[in-house]
Amino acid sequence: MAKNALPVTRAENFANWYQEVIKAADMAEHSGVRGCMVIKPWGYKIWERIQSLLDKRIQETGHDNCYFPLFIPLSLIQKEASHVEGFAKEMAVVTHHRLVMEDGVLKPAAPLEEPLVVRPTSETMIGEAFARWIESYRDLPMKLNQWANVVRWEMRPRLFLRTSEFLWQEGHTAHATAEDALDETRTMLGVYREVAEDMMRIPLIPGEKSEGERFPGAVETHTIEAMMQDGRALQAGTSHYLGQNFAKAANIDFQDENGQQQLVHTTSWGVSTRLVGGLIMTHADDDGLRLPPVIAPHQVVILPIIRDESARGPVMEACQALAKRLGQQSFADAPVRAFVDTRDDSASNKRWAWIKKGVPLVCEIGPRDLEKGSLALFKRDLPPTEKSFPAQDEFVAHVAHHLGEIDTALYEQAKSFRDAMSRDDITTLEDLRAHFTGENKTGFVRAKWCGEKGSEGALDDLGVTIRCIPYDQSGTAGKCVLTGKDATTDIILAKAY
Amino acid sequence: MAKNALPVTRAENFANWYQEVIKAADMAEHSGVRGCMVIKPWGYKIWERIQSLLDKRIQETGHDNCYFPLFIPLSLIQKEASHVEGFAKEMAVVTHHRLVMEDGVLKPAAPLEEPLVVRPTSETMIGEAFARWIESYRDLPMKLNQWANVVRWEMRPRLFLRTSEFLWQEGHTAHATAEDALDETRTMLGVYREVAEDMMRIPLIPGEKSEGERFPGAVETHTIEAMMQDGRALQAGTSHYLGQNFAKAANIDFQDENGQQQLVHTTSWGVSTRLVGGLIMTHADDDGLRLPPVIAPHQVVILPIIRDESARGPVMEACQALAKRLGQQSFADAPVRAFVDTRDDSASNKRWAWIKKGVPLVCEIGPRDLEKGSLALFKRDLPPTEKSFPAQDEFVAHVAHHLGEIDTALYEQAKSFRDAMSRDDITTLEDLRAHFTGENKTGFVRAKWCGEKGSEGALDDLGVTIRCIPYDQSGTAGKCVLTGKDATTDIILAKAY
Repeated sequence: MAKNALPVTRAENFANWYQEVIKAADMAEHSGVRGCMVIKPWGYKIWERIQSLLDKRIQETGHDNCYFPLFIPLSLIQKEASHVEGFAKEMAVVTHHRLVMEDGVLKPAAPLEEPLVVRPTSETMIGEAFARWIESYRDLPMKLNQWANVVRWEMRPRLFLRTSEFLWQEGHTAHATAEDALDETRTMLGVYREVAEDMMRIPLIPGEKSEGERFPGAVETHTIEAMMQDGRALQAGTSHYLGQNFAKAANIDFQDENGQQQLVHTTSWGVSTRLVGGLIMTHADDDGLRLPPVIAPHQVVILPIIRDESARGPVMEACQALAKRLGQQSFADAPVRAFVDTRDDSASNKRWAWIKKGVPLVCEIGPRDLEKGSLALFKRDLPPTEKSFPAQDEFVAHVAHHLGEIDTALYEQAKSFRDAMSRDDITTLEDLRAHFTGENKTGFVRAKWCGEKGSEGALDDLGVTIRCIPYDQSGTAGKCVLTGKDATTDIILAKAY
Repeated sequence: MAKNALPVTRAENFANWYQEVIKAADMAEHSGVRGCMVIKPWGYKIWERIQSLLDKRIQETGHDNCYFPLFIPLSLIQKEASHVEGFAKEMAVVTHHRLVMEDGVLKPAAPLEEPLVVRPTSETMIGEAFARWIESYRDLPMKLNQWANVVRWEMRPRLFLRTSEFLWQEGHTAHATAEDALDETRTMLGVYREVAEDMMRIPLIPGEKSEGERFPGAVETHTIEAMMQDGRALQAGTSHYLGQNFAKAANIDFQDENGQQQLVHTTSWGVSTRLVGGLIMTHADDDGLRLPPVIAPHQVVILPIIRDESARGPVMEACQALAKRLGQQSFADAPVRAFVDTRDDSASNKRWAWIKKGVPLVCEIGPRDLEKGSLALFKRDLPPTEKSFPAQDEFVAHVAHHLGEIDTALYEQAKSFRDAMSRDDITTLEDLRAHFTGENKTGFVRAKWCGEKGSEGALDDLGVTIRCIPYDQSGTAGKCVLTGKDATTDIILAKAY
């Protein structure tokens, strides 16, 4: 078995283990362009699964997909001051629109009159369109979404988690009232929670960001925070109530029902390919990736065992027949996705390849199984040495049950880990600092906070931040863990990606 | 009716008419960034329909979706000489990765060590990956596709047809033999023909490009050529056999079954949002867009006619019930897409809005229809003044038939137009020049060509090009229309977008 295991375990070196999981599952790799990744077919299929689950819900909640330009003129992006300040340090700038060959070397030529920024996000671009499109209350709410690539220059890239270019969806809406916009902000956070927690099976803490952690230009930022297997937090998705900040900057006004001109209230919200990184760091183990069944591109992989060429035909037929029968079963309101791997390689190599890719169920059918109508079954939530030998009929009848078991197991394991790595008994700054510098340097700490501006700075040197003010508040009174003052608000503190 | 017609007809000014169709259907608009468009929800839904039809076929023919970086280092893109020469004049160049505020003005800071090109296409980027990934004949064929945005700087932009940024898919494959790669090249052109002709109902001439019209770096370029309603040709999709040009440039080699190192043969193929422009210029009329049913986001729009508030409830219910029944019918192997427009506006305004958006069937149901179980039906292939009053039951039963009629009518009309605008009786350069400078300045001319290098130049001043050497060859002998020499090859000549 050793030859198949990953070259490094989570306990040995978490960062290297993460890289090795991605490599072993053949999901992505760094490209020759600093900070930009190549998403390979298996990684991309997983992203497409997440996309389709999200897109369905984005449409069901009344949003239209559209597409806005990749480039933003400098004069436009600087309209909202805190926004541009937040992104200035990481923006890629296009300055020329032609190349010429000089002495055998390509050089930029034809400078642009005004440099263009490669979008880090599209609030300014879409705000400018809203200003043109919205005239009256009848045009509201305006609810748009786009699937796009964005660029935020990254000096310390990590596949999926921090890349200079990443793929995401960004929703942008405009509303007549603050109340409607706040409703929208929460609704979309709810959609993210549903996909990330109920489908990707990542345990989440939804809540609001403190002022210091808000999106540049937002009045409120809502977030779903997950814990990775090294005890660090991952912000898995955010939804922003932008108030009238962008409406003021871009002059997005409308005539209300009384004939008065008013500024709209806007929101924006996004999740990205970073979710794939969160999926890996939540569920993968020392054998490779583990995929929750709703996300798995293949839920069942069937391997024909050919020991003798004369049996090839019947074995292949049995495998295809099984795949077909499985496809007639359903799990989570969709047909079961079964795949027969007919590649010419040993069953053991193929089994390990699929284990590393995180496929929930792997079945093997050989000549002897034909007589007995059985198969060998490997379940990804169990050690790879464990297998069972159900009858094929029984397996088909119970496939949804098997998938459901894995679905639950992955969630429960992640939740148990998070619970074990969470504390709520730390009440002083001293203890908090001791916790995050001690043996257990990570994990979530739930504590009280007085909300004083600047008080978050006390943990800057440790890289610890307030991850969120969770929706789920205890309602008790106590002392602020940062200032020692009276406080009633619960916060979650952690080191984060 | 005049108030609803487009402000300009095809005959009056085709270019302006095209803009007005897009505006009236609310599909797209120019953005503040030169050459870049905003694709609005209706335009994007049409693109999503095309995407889903294509993506299904791309996957069925054995390709995997993936994603490669937006940026290409200068040193990489210049590896294939004719390729870089072909694109150098239109490449956007990123030179900085930070902005700073100086005297209240944002300026680029932090120059990149090596400038990056925003991809105009990804042969070089994907070729570099192929070189790393492909080791042996067992790795072949490698068949990838990506859906992405690309940038080719455009000085004279036109919505959908020529934009500096556009959306597309680009397929890239590597094969062990020239034969396999040529098969792939033709297979994918066939996929494009199927979607563009059988589904988008654009009559096409598939064929091969002459040398002067090939993709930069290709050995063969295959194309589907369509005729727009002004008699100009539109290249609707291309598929390239790249031979070993990119394999040589990027050193993509493999060990064959005999242990010998060989260079692979590669292909690439793409279609873009330009197809949406082709759809408009093939089918739209002086009342606005007309959509073939397979492409239409809504195939049937149902309008409740509320003359009296007391009837609102029952009319709305009848409309929703009809939509539900229609959704249980199928057309072209998919459920019929019916939509009830409940917006608060006059029936006439709403009907015209949907006519301009090109929806195949518009139904109206008012209080009197409730008693009679009838509806008013408008078919987009007939003049908007014509309506019929079928029973609802009958309409539901025949909806697929109605859609089929529109599907056929759009294709037949486009084909008749093309036939009327095509000539095959021009045999001399003099007559050819007279044709393209005379009263009928456009249209397709099928003539003979000797294939002599440079002979195509004789028509440069007229903007006429060889659109393709059609697969469908007459096999007759004659005189080359450009040189007067003996020739057997048929070509299609036209002015093109």
